[in-house]
Amino acid sequence: MKKIVSVSALAIAGMGLSLPGLANEGMWQPHQLPQLEKTLKAMGLKVPPKKMSTLTSFPMNAIISLGGCTASFVSPKGLAVTNHHCAYGSIQYNSSAEKNLLADGFLAKDFSQELPASPGSRVYVTESLENVSDKIMSGLSVELSGSERYQAIETKEKDMVAACEQDDSYRCEIYSFHGGLEYYLIKQLAIRDVRLVYAPAASVGKFGGDTDNWMWPRHTGDWSFYRAYVNKDGKPADFSKDNVPYEPKSHLKVSAKGVKDGDFIMAAGYPGRTNRYRTSAEVVNNFTWSYPTAKRYREEYIDTIKSVAPAGSDERIKYASTIASLANYAKNYGSMINSYNKGDMLARKKTLEAELQLWIDAKPERKNQYGEAISKLHELVKRYEENQEHDLLYAYIRRTNLLPAAQKLLRLAHEKQKLDAEREPGYQERDMTRFTQGMERIDRRFDAKVDSAVLEHFLEQYAAFDDAERVPAMDKTFGLDEGFNAADVAATLKNMHSTTGLGDKKTRLEWMGKSVADFESSNDPFIKLAVALYDYEMAKEAKSKTLAGELQQARPAYMAAIIAYNTSLGKPIYADANSSLRVTYGKVKGYQPQDGLTATPFTTLEGLAAKVVKGDEEFDAPDALIKAIKDKNYGSYKQKWLGSVPVNYLGTLDITGGNSGSPALNDKAELVGLLFDGVYESIIGDWDYDDNLNRSIQVDSRFMLWVMDKVDGAQNLIDEMDVVR
Amino acid sequence: MKKIVSVSALAIAGMGLSLPGLANEGMWQPHQLPQLEKTLKAMGLKVPPKKMSTLTSFPMNAIISLGGCTASFVSPKGLAVTNHHCAYGSIQYNSSAEKNLLADGFLAKDFSQELPASPGSRVYVTESLENVSDKIMSGLSVELSGSERYQAIETKEKDMVAACEQDDSYRCEIYSFHGGLEYYLIKQLAIRDVRLVYAPAASVGKFGGDTDNWMWPRHTGDWSFYRAYVNKDGKPADFSKDNVPYEPKSHLKVSAKGVKDGDFIMAAGYPGRTNRYRTSAEVVNNFTWSYPTAKRYREEYIDTIKSVAPAGSDERIKYASTIASLANYAKNYGSMINSYNKGDMLARKKTLEAELQLWIDAKPERKNQYGEAISKLHELVKRYEENQEHDLLYAYIRRTNLLPAAQKLLRLAHEKQKLDAEREPGYQERDMTRFTQGMERIDRRFDAKVDSAVLEHFLEQYAAFDDAERVPAMDKTFGLDEGFNAADVAATLKNMHSTTGLGDKKTRLEWMGKSVADFESSNDPFIKLAVALYDYEMAKEAKSKTLAGELQQARPAYMAAIIAYNTSLGKPIYADANSSLRVTYGKVKGYQPQDGLTATPFTTLEGLAAKVVKGDEEFDAPDALIKAIKDKNYGSYKQKWLGSVPVNYLGTLDITGGNSGSPALNDKAELVGLLFDGVYESIIGDWDYDDNLNRSIQVDSRFMLWVMDKVDGAQNLIDEMDVVR
Repeated sequence: MKKIVSVSALAIAGMGLSLPGLANEGMWQPHQLPQLEKTLKAMGLKVPPKKMSTLTSFPMNAIISLGGCTASFVSPKGLAVTNHHCAYGSIQYNSSAEKNLLADGFLAKDFSQELPASPGSRVYVTESLENVSDKIMSGLSVELSGSERYQAIETKEKDMVAACEQDDSYRCEIYSFHGGLEYYLIKQLAIRDVRLVYAPAASVGKFGGDTDNWMWPRHTGDWSFYRAYVNKDGKPADFSKDNVPYEPKSHLKVSAKGVKDGDFIMAAGYPGRTNRYRTSAEVVNNFTWSYPTAKRYREEYIDTIKSVAPAGSDERIKYASTIASLANYAKNYGSMINSYNKGDMLARKKTLEAELQLWIDAKPERKNQYGEAISKLHELVKRYEENQEHDLLYAYIRRTNLLPAAQKLLRLAHEKQKLDAEREPGYQERDMTRFTQGMERIDRRFDAKVDSAVLEHFLEQYAAFDDAERVPAMDKTFGLDEGFNAADVAATLKNMHSTTGLGDKKTRLEWMGKSVADFESSNDPFIKLAVALYDYEMAKEAKSKTLAGELQQARPAYMAAIIAYNTSLGKPIYADANSSLRVTYGKVKGYQPQDGLTATPFTTLEGLAAKVVKGDEEFDAPDALIKAIKDKNYGSYKQKWLGSVPVNYLGTLDITGGNSGSPALNDKAELVGLLFDGVYESIIGDWDYDDNLNRSIQVDSRFMLWVMDKVDGAQNLIDEMDVVR
Repeated sequence: MKKIVSVSALAIAGMGLSLPGLANEGMWQPHQLPQLEKTLKAMGLKVPPKKMSTLTSFPMNAIISLGGCTASFVSPKGLAVTNHHCAYGSIQYNSSAEKNLLADGFLAKDFSQELPASPGSRVYVTESLENVSDKIMSGLSVELSGSERYQAIETKEKDMVAACEQDDSYRCEIYSFHGGLEYYLIKQLAIRDVRLVYAPAASVGKFGGDTDNWMWPRHTGDWSFYRAYVNKDGKPADFSKDNVPYEPKSHLKVSAKGVKDGDFIMAAGYPGRTNRYRTSAEVVNNFTWSYPTAKRYREEYIDTIKSVAPAGSDERIKYASTIASLANYAKNYGSMINSYNKGDMLARKKTLEAELQLWIDAKPERKNQYGEAISKLHELVKRYEENQEHDLLYAYIRRTNLLPAAQKLLRLAHEKQKLDAEREPGYQERDMTRFTQGMERIDRRFDAKVDSAVLEHFLEQYAAFDDAERVPAMDKTFGLDEGFNAADVAATLKNMHSTTGLGDKKTRLEWMGKSVADFESSNDPFIKLAVALYDYEMAKEAKSKTLAGELQQARPAYMAAIIAYNTSLGKPIYADANSSLRVTYGKVKGYQPQDGLTATPFTTLEGLAAKVVKGDEEFDAPDALIKAIKDKNYGSYKQKWLGSVPVNYLGTLDITGGNSGSPALNDKAELVGLLFDGVYESIIGDWDYDDNLNRSIQVDSRFMLWVMDKVDGAQNLIDEMDVVR
């Protein structure tokens, strides 16, 4: 699953109006589950919802975060299962030309063979969750300016996080809900000795590749196994031979019985970001301007790379993942634009907004409390959109390599002048591992010729903007005052690239230790440009924080109105996704992607075999797997009603990026699969849940067990888990 | 439907082994239907099969050919319905900038408003069919050489055709069945005053365009209406105001009740060409060499055009239909290669061949009669394949414009030296209308720069062939003796194009009247090249006729064995398609295009509306139609079980190109739709009918009537037809 996590123009946390009444919609905070008891029981849940609302008991304490993905404990010895694409970096990290774990897969036959996960890998076990709304809000006068408000909240958050992280076993984070109506401090045990236990071959784990990404029918074996290790005292510790497997308070049983069409399923996980409560004005702007424009920029970006780096060239290979990612989101935006044009989301939003307004207008006290919420939010949104043409293009200019590297390094030098606690998030000591990795990674994805061509392409469009939207330092560096001259800009860029030191990893890392004065006296052309742009960037950031601060007041007010209105109708409201732990429930169910076509809920081993193209990077499969299918060596995993072993299945779970790796659970909270994607028609789900089209894709637990049993010989892991047969 | 009709490497009429036992497979000659009586009755047919076996009574005498397409009479006044894509040329012919019938559609409100169809349009009514096998075979000694045999058959055919066409009201043709085991003389009334009566807008008739071609789900309104006119004596005549509507002996009723899932359907029509009885060796060669190579050539051809004629250029517009056609068949071949690689056609063929061999070997008299049939055919097929690399590439070189034009003109000059009856088919007087049209048409599809680039591209590959596969005259013209020099070849081509007169239509038509001596003394570089190549071409043709003559003996012998074997099993055998009238029967039925996906048999008006993209060339639709759907103005055409009006539906009919426009008939032989395409997975159907995947696509009679009634206001035609409600 490669859903949008953030795009600068779209990144403000969600608010608007959605459809809470529909079945299966909702990413619920665990503490809300008792409110849904009636529905959950009617749908088939056998675990008491109250039990599921406690983070520190089964099954919730078996659900863990990897930071960006979800996983779950499946043995008392810290064995955790997640998606193959979530463990991809660790598999790659342990691969070499001689021992290609990505291609061949990997299985540790005992604990001693387990391999360290990639640097920075973490297992986060949520241990507590505290509503700190009052602490954050107290003393926040309505008189504060936007920037004061933003700063005040950030300071309080940083203080609380720092206090919580006194014990370095923990990672703490403040999560805002409903755009800032509620704040929770979430404390997670941060286990840092994580080891790779088992991954099927990439031709199983990534079967279908980018072609099948977001698509149904699907036949992907998207799972891998990690194990969490702690020191002998049971505390998180760096990798050591003396560490021992972490013993979780509970773990999930794995069902070999699985599910069938219509069965109840649910999933717990850490969905990243949704926009279900945006206003109709924001919807119109995003779907008629932001997404179409971003889609165009991405397509142009790809075309530019391809024109400079012909197929098969070294440069092209370096940019393969950049192209894949650009194309992936161009496809994503395309799907959303299509869905928007075909669907009636906007009409429904407008109806709901009108109903809300009527409800507010019906009583003076409501008018008094919420009356200005909507108009204030509209005004701020309009202000936000004022500079969007400039901002989005500028964001794509900053997606090149060396300019943003120089800017981040310079910012670090500035931030280092402050006390750690006062630094901008992203530049504190706790962020330095990730920062360093980012600086190192550039080497693998960068070529001067391509970087120049892309910059030149977007500068030409930038040069067409009005003066008011231009940045003098940029104009000066590239001589754009008198219009865009392609030859001049190309010559400037060529010169910059031939004299800069930032193309070199060691040099970049050295700049991490330098002072502002070092930057200001540097002759490196990218550093010089970063210095020249610095004041402009800071002013832009200040303006954006001011707006954010105002939104931190306006969105909660608007959201409070929505919640009050829905409460009056007896409807519980879930918050937009914010990377915190959520539960979604639904059914195993197919759908009608188009008139004349029905997606049936299960795929089979025969369907997988039919897709195989030997030698094709995306659709090859291991010989042993193909042979096992040919021999119909299905054992007890074959389902009579299907005539085969199920591979993937569709469900109505309400999910987004970050849910990857979430266990799909049956009515008894046994693991019946792993969530790993959504279908093409549900990409717009980040904005709007449609009961008819929103479908999650799960890899079936029976397929997992069958591959482990009949193909990969992972009997040791099957024995370690509690398999329900 | 744009299925393969002929590709040089694949064009020999079919023979091999197929699966006659499977339900729904078979393109049956009408006289065979009584043999199938039991099956047809069991499936639901209510018309006595015996009645359907007579060409001169209902319903067969209502089924007519347009030459390449099928149509049927639907009123006593000569009103005929066919596909929109079959009448496309006539709609285009009557369109002008002021009155764009393609875009707007056309409806004659009375007879006087009907418009002449495009020049050369014909309605062929089959009046008789005579088995002339004995006449052809008599005196054909086994001693004859291949070329003598070929020539002897051609002479007899031409004589019989000439005798039959004494009455110029008729068009006569000899059709060979089972590769030459049987010959039929078919005599058709050739009505030449054909008028356009009604066509919906292209945005209905071609809705979905090339994107949806061969695809399901489908929402295409692929129908148009013609009327046949004759003179006051009831004889075919050229267009005249005094002509009167032709009165067919019978016509089809049109069902407003239509069909539902599982209902019996059948179709009668003129399928072009299939290869169901090819040997396993031919299958291997075609699917592992011919189609992959032809696909590559087509893709290279497209790339070359695109590189010289950038998007939006005048040249690109000229080549749009060439590119579409090249891409169409590249897609077609791609589908067949996919199906072949996924399926088990080859294994089944080999099994059947082995069974046949066992059956032959089991009795001495069978060995005596058929023993050498298989080995002889294998030997000839091998000989045929010997030069295929050269032949296919040479064929693509000859797909350019001016060289083949020069060659055809020169050939005409040579043929004109003979008596008309002795000329090569294609160069007789009866062919001159079509020949002239071909020479005229070049203008609209030709650009010297593109023509040169394509020629240059393929010449480079040709230059890599061994000497034995090279043509000296070609080498000399382009200086290829010493290898391929791009600059030299380009200069030669540029010079040829700047001095030739053949780029001019008038000049080309003038050459149609010139003598061989005129050609031989010409300085026109393309004429000179044609003259230089002439002896080589004739020798190649003679060789190919020799082989064809030998195959005319070997294939029938092989086919006789297959028929005898199947007769011994009680299985009737249908002949490969050969553009003669056939009947196919089956059911309305969906299918599973892929694991996890079911194609349901009907599409709906809502599905059509969901596909509409305003302003898109392929997916726009008339406002009146969109409005009628929005208003749910469905009248009596709405089906309760579907909740809408059905648009297109899937059936198991066994069809190929040439079946386009065939009426789909219900159990009472009422028209319930028009056949217009097959699904992507059934493109391989020309070689192999797979019960699970072969699906025909029909436009539903209820959709036709609904559009005529609620959108196009064609009440006059509804009144004229016998509509069964």
